[in-house]
Amino acid sequence: MSKPLILVTNDDGITAPGLRFLIRQMNEMGEVVVVAPEGPQSGMGHAITINATLRCDEITVNDGPQRDFSCSGTPVDCVKMAVNVVLDRRPDLIVSGINHGSNASINVIYSGTMSAAVEGALEGIPSVGFSLLDYSWDADFSHAEQPIRTIIREVMSNGLPKGTCLNVNIPKHSTEPIRGIKVCRQADANWTEEFDRREDPRGRSYYWLTGRFEVFDKGEDTDEWALAHNYVSVVPIETDFTAHHFMGELNRWGLNHGE
Amino acid sequence: MSKPLILVTNDDGITAPGLRFLIRQMNEMGEVVVVAPEGPQSGMGHAITINATLRCDEITVNDGPQRDFSCSGTPVDCVKMAVNVVLDRRPDLIVSGINHGSNASINVIYSGTMSAAVEGALEGIPSVGFSLLDYSWDADFSHAEQPIRTIIREVMSNGLPKGTCLNVNIPKHSTEPIRGIKVCRQADANWTEEFDRREDPRGRSYYWLTGRFEVFDKGEDTDEWALAHNYVSVVPIETDFTAHHFMGELNRWGLNHGE
Repeated sequence: MSKPLILVTNDDGITAPGLRFLIRQMNEMGEVVVVAPEGPQSGMGHAITINATLRCDEITVNDGPQRDFSCSGTPVDCVKMAVNVVLDRRPDLIVSGINHGSNASINVIYSGTMSAAVEGALEGIPSVGFSLLDYSWDADFSHAEQPIRTIIREVMSNGLPKGTCLNVNIPKHSTEPIRGIKVCRQADANWTEEFDRREDPRGRSYYWLTGRFEVFDKGEDTDEWALAHNYVSVVPIETDFTAHHFMGELNRWGLNHGE
Repeated sequence: MSKPLILVTNDDGITAPGLRFLIRQMNEMGEVVVVAPEGPQSGMGHAITINATLRCDEITVNDGPQRDFSCSGTPVDCVKMAVNVVLDRRPDLIVSGINHGSNASINVIYSGTMSAAVEGALEGIPSVGFSLLDYSWDADFSHAEQPIRTIIREVMSNGLPKGTCLNVNIPKHSTEPIRGIKVCRQADANWTEEFDRREDPRGRSYYWLTGRFEVFDKGEDTDEWALAHNYVSVVPIETDFTAHHFMGELNRWGLNHGE
């Protein structure tokens, strides 16, 4: 029996330590092909490249048996290129990450890492995005090994329904061991923007986007709660964006008319 | 009483005819401020600019009483810049579009137009994205006037819950009059990619992303069904991406452990 084919991607770029760590784990679980952005693509959300051309070239990275492809596009472009151009058969699994920084709660919407996993889910391929709550480039990923293996083994044996992927966040490395894994819902939280205004040498204004993250949710069943209590959070993510809970009320407005 | 403050944006850029049409409608319903991308931002999804600087400058367009600001970022950047830098009070309404082309079904995930509306919903501002099923730059928007007014009036009088916005798609102009407006769910559909491979003058491969759109959903309560039957479709869109329907099954896996 052939080994499962695992596609690995991310949004921090093909040289990111988080990606290289994830590749090492996946090499022990299947045949690995990496199709990752040539440079940083953080904050790209579900962007795709439709007004420009794409490149995707094999490169040599001597750190394992995997094959590595560097792609000029976004993380979602990487998944589309991998499935349609690079791979000669359908992958059994897509893993994205490990992102340097949290993608818990509403961050899933801005995250290139998670958008790659969501794109996999749209293709009907079991997909998982991994993120570590540490933005530093030299973050310690060692404690992520065990939860990653547990989650990937469960996904491989159970599968995932079409249109659903997993958003996994892992607490920052600390002296306290991880307390476990928790299935959660997405916490209600949001960014409060703070634009940092500056002037260029010609006196024209420009801005840097910065912000403060605020968790409004007091629930103990959320990803933010789990992470604050040193658990790995697992949130199943949906690609039907219909607000079904609001359909009843919307139908009572005066909108529906016609034959 | 002061007129409602309406923020108008889009993803086709500040000169797009669909945007200028929408501005004209909104000028009759409130005080309008436009903060739109300086150039095309189609397919940008929920991307934000975190690794580069942003510009946002007022420009003069002599087609009405509104104020126009041209922004170097994505549609989501435009909303963040508008709310935090440009406007001196919170907008009562955000409208995005009219997009030149459909954003029905799964297109909502790739659409900069809809991501601007989703960003408004995250801010708790009633937000609506409008799209016309016609990609041409000189599309006829005249039949969109009546449904836009009806929908905006309803949103202004009912409000929208925080985290929910509306995705409105309007059939292409034809000799048949629009049959009405329908509240719908997002159809199950997806793109099948077809990468167009070419060679540059140096013999290196590059690709254009193209594709075929396929509707799998046979339901008569979807946006694709409504549009195919000459109705305007209205889908409420959610920003809680948790796959609640899958929580039960996921909890039965062997994942949850720890204290």
